[in-house]
Amino acid sequence: MAEQDARGGSATAQLLRAMRAVVGAANVADDGATLARYARSTAARGTMPLAVVRPGSRAEVVALVDLARRYRAPLYPVSTGKNWGYGDACAVTDGQVVLELARMNRIVQVDPQLAYAVIEPGVTQQQLADYLRERGIGLQIDCTGAGPDTSFLGNILERGFGHSPYGNRLAHIAGMQVVLASGEVLDTGFGHYPNARTAHLFPYGVGPFLDGLFTQSNFGVVTQVGIWLMPKAECINHFLCTVPAHEDIAEVIDALRPLRLDGTLRSIVHIGNDLRVLSGGCTFPREQAGDQSMLPADMRSAMRARAGAGAWTVSGALYGSALQVAAARAALKKALRGTQATTIFLTERTLKQGAFLANLLGKFGGGQRLRARVALGNALFAMNRGVPNGRFLAGAYWRRRGGLPSGFPMRADPGADNCGMLWVSPVLPMRGVDVLALHALAAPIFAHYRFDLFATFSMINERALGGVLTVAYDKDDPAEVDRAQMCHAALFDAAMKAGYIPYRVGIGSMAALDPHGDVYWKTVSRIKRALDPDGIIAPGRYEPGLQRRIAKHDRFGAIR
Amino acid sequence: MAEQDARGGSATAQLLRAMRAVVGAANVADDGATLARYARSTAARGTMPLAVVRPGSRAEVVALVDLARRYRAPLYPVSTGKNWGYGDACAVTDGQVVLELARMNRIVQVDPQLAYAVIEPGVTQQQLADYLRERGIGLQIDCTGAGPDTSFLGNILERGFGHSPYGNRLAHIAGMQVVLASGEVLDTGFGHYPNARTAHLFPYGVGPFLDGLFTQSNFGVVTQVGIWLMPKAECINHFLCTVPAHEDIAEVIDALRPLRLDGTLRSIVHIGNDLRVLSGGCTFPREQAGDQSMLPADMRSAMRARAGAGAWTVSGALYGSALQVAAARAALKKALRGTQATTIFLTERTLKQGAFLANLLGKFGGGQRLRARVALGNALFAMNRGVPNGRFLAGAYWRRRGGLPSGFPMRADPGADNCGMLWVSPVLPMRGVDVLALHALAAPIFAHYRFDLFATFSMINERALGGVLTVAYDKDDPAEVDRAQMCHAALFDAAMKAGYIPYRVGIGSMAALDPHGDVYWKTVSRIKRALDPDGIIAPGRYEPGLQRRIAKHDRFGAIR
Repeated sequence: MAEQDARGGSATAQLLRAMRAVVGAANVADDGATLARYARSTAARGTMPLAVVRPGSRAEVVALVDLARRYRAPLYPVSTGKNWGYGDACAVTDGQVVLELARMNRIVQVDPQLAYAVIEPGVTQQQLADYLRERGIGLQIDCTGAGPDTSFLGNILERGFGHSPYGNRLAHIAGMQVVLASGEVLDTGFGHYPNARTAHLFPYGVGPFLDGLFTQSNFGVVTQVGIWLMPKAECINHFLCTVPAHEDIAEVIDALRPLRLDGTLRSIVHIGNDLRVLSGGCTFPREQAGDQSMLPADMRSAMRARAGAGAWTVSGALYGSALQVAAARAALKKALRGTQATTIFLTERTLKQGAFLANLLGKFGGGQRLRARVALGNALFAMNRGVPNGRFLAGAYWRRRGGLPSGFPMRADPGADNCGMLWVSPVLPMRGVDVLALHALAAPIFAHYRFDLFATFSMINERALGGVLTVAYDKDDPAEVDRAQMCHAALFDAAMKAGYIPYRVGIGSMAALDPHGDVYWKTVSRIKRALDPDGIIAPGRYEPGLQRRIAKHDRFGAIR
Repeated sequence: MAEQDARGGSATAQLLRAMRAVVGAANVADDGATLARYARSTAARGTMPLAVVRPGSRAEVVALVDLARRYRAPLYPVSTGKNWGYGDACAVTDGQVVLELARMNRIVQVDPQLAYAVIEPGVTQQQLADYLRERGIGLQIDCTGAGPDTSFLGNILERGFGHSPYGNRLAHIAGMQVVLASGEVLDTGFGHYPNARTAHLFPYGVGPFLDGLFTQSNFGVVTQVGIWLMPKAECINHFLCTVPAHEDIAEVIDALRPLRLDGTLRSIVHIGNDLRVLSGGCTFPREQAGDQSMLPADMRSAMRARAGAGAWTVSGALYGSALQVAAARAALKKALRGTQATTIFLTERTLKQGAFLANLLGKFGGGQRLRARVALGNALFAMNRGVPNGRFLAGAYWRRRGGLPSGFPMRADPGADNCGMLWVSPVLPMRGVDVLALHALAAPIFAHYRFDLFATFSMINERALGGVLTVAYDKDDPAEVDRAQMCHAALFDAAMKAGYIPYRVGIGSMAALDPHGDVYWKTVSRIKRALDPDGIIAPGRYEPGLQRRIAKHDRFGAIR
């Protein structure tokens, strides 16, 4: 963007004036405090926006895109901006105009019979769950562990995954609406036929199927999506397998894989290490552990024993009629026979009984342990039933000074709460041997940089595990921040080299996705040029080549 | 393509010479007999290729694409060329070089543990089924009713659907290999990372998800795909619901929808009208019906009564452990209670008993009827178990003179057998009211043009029905051919206008997909130009604007 303009005032000032005319002065900000808030990130360094603009409708998005094109200003769409661990609301580079879509939070339509909703980017998990509950609609959403206030649409576009049979979220949508860089509005699937009756029932439409293009990309601004909702199950059982020793997780994964393959396990099964369980109720015990950033082995074992946790916990839910769930339970028990796992099944009834018993036992010892377990069980069941909560974000707070904030977990906001967290999310074959191999590769790197290794492996489809390795660090300790970044980079690099490629990356890792300039990324560039020749939408986002070039400059304008 | 070239000989002759140098003289044909064979179509009129070229490897495809680009010659990829009812092996226009990939029939890899295969375009359903059986691999394929010799990959690219829990075929692939118009080879998903361990386990990869682009399009030549295979189920039950009166199908669909939505019915359920059942064993009874093209109502009722068929038959399979199948049966019975449907469950055991009993009863009457039912049951079970057969193509032969050919159903080939068949395939909401509405719209059109209405509605996902309406006609009667085309056009138009958009179209209907020049098709054009600026790959295929322009010319060369 040219710094000065003949008609007086900088081009930036003119652009912001024009944007204010579109969305109202209250919805454009470029004051230092606001910019600093949007520059905040659980990553070590966020990026500084040029401004933040908050449209309230699709028409306003179109007008803003037209302005961006005219001024050649980069526009960086975020939904609610809570992409924690991957860059929050930050653009890939400094100097972009953050287009925050949180005000566009209409639930446009819910069809109770055909079980879908049409939503805008600002609709949160909590909002949609409330909507269904308040109206007594017999449907539920799939929840992610990212907390109540996160955007449903934003998560889909980043190809996030949840907990339920609809946890492979991209596989459960139909019909996107996208504002293109040209200002045109594209309806995918059958949606571009004005009278189509199945725009949100059949995703493919006729002709090339385009939805995938608008996920993990910068090809347009998605302003609406049709998402499929699940009928409330008559019966849900939750199972928890405790696996005592590290190596034993391999045989458990291999025992469960056939059940995921044959459809017995239809929901996303999550496999977490001890720290994922231990961090649920507390943060790093600085008092006892002293001035170090990694839990001493003896303390870790003691905490594990106290919590009754294994090296690994496998957690998943069975949905169906009572008869169907009983059949799945039988299959699960049979499969796990002969492994070292101890499995318990939770039902809503046993949880009520547990709560009653915990009250009887009182505040201490057994009562307290039981109460903690009931609380965990209730949180899991809430997720299974489509009621989000922030409890599973606890890992982000592990190294935070001052422990868990008072509002936790209902108001969990790792970005606002100054949490330090970086994620590496490699995809693995669903085999025990791969989990052990990746773990063996990661553990020395975490140890070298003196961080605790938080690991989750989720059965994101029938054949693959989505790993999430968390580097949790203290943002108030500059040396630790540096170490965290080095740890993340080393880990990312090692996983890539070993062929465990991430399913999703943070804003700092885009360039690393294309070390050799391959045909896939060339093809992506060609499509980008075809759909956004001026490069105004989210430059650098899943655009490795551009990020490399931009990296040398401070401001986006400098590369034009 | 310029007709003459300075160096002597026509450009076409030069191109064919160059192509022969790549694939060998035996694999390039432009003789009249071969061209006529490839111009054959179950549609009234096929298109005449310039030549047919049959590469044997990806490297040869690359070389041919490079030649096509150099000579600006249109290259029309087909797998085995059996896209019956939608244009067979014919290009959208005359004068294209048909690139037949049938020789590329390697089963590149089968992973028995993670349950997938990597196949080339020439691999047929039968070939893959045989491969698994011969090696004793405990996996099965999803079968379509299109017969044993059809390409698995070709069907996926046209977004065909099958019969099993993997019947939504596009949802069960990971990792495509595509030769682009540039001659570059694109590996989608994680496949472009040379060492990726999950190229065929996790379709999305990282960055924009491109697979959908290469379905129902002309953006590249797909030379390989990873397909997911199903573990053989311990137990399969097949159910058949007979619905006596036409209108009663509505309540049955509404009763089944919740079971499809909640995962009780995981496989594709097919709903066919009486003619779909009646045509299984015979063709149009010319002797009795005389010189007319539509079955008289009284004959139809008599045939229906004799076969014990209802107005509609619902057909589907339950997969799982014995316990899981029992639970699904219970849910199905409960759902259908109160409807007019009579439901029977077939198992492999009851079919054996039935065959034994039919032998006892002898050749006539009850024995014959039972034998016919056992044969149908066996064909259905073969499909469920991933063993293809041509029986479900019988409708294509309905108006064929001379009845079903002797090799039927094992060697069913409607194209070679001179069958006349046109399909209209609208997608409907999964609701009884929509099936009745579409039927009410179609029936008068069929009656007007004096054709029998063959109708199937398949539960292609949890919320939509894929309708297939067949116009079966006598190719040896020019007047009937004309009527069939008018009937197809009227039907296509009426369905589009009513908002029941087709999921797939024949080569003659591409232009009709974009009556108004909408943003979706504009976007598709932009991507086409970005990936194939010379327009060499399958011009006109799912490219409505181009087909409209080409329609005015006989030869592709004329529009360059």
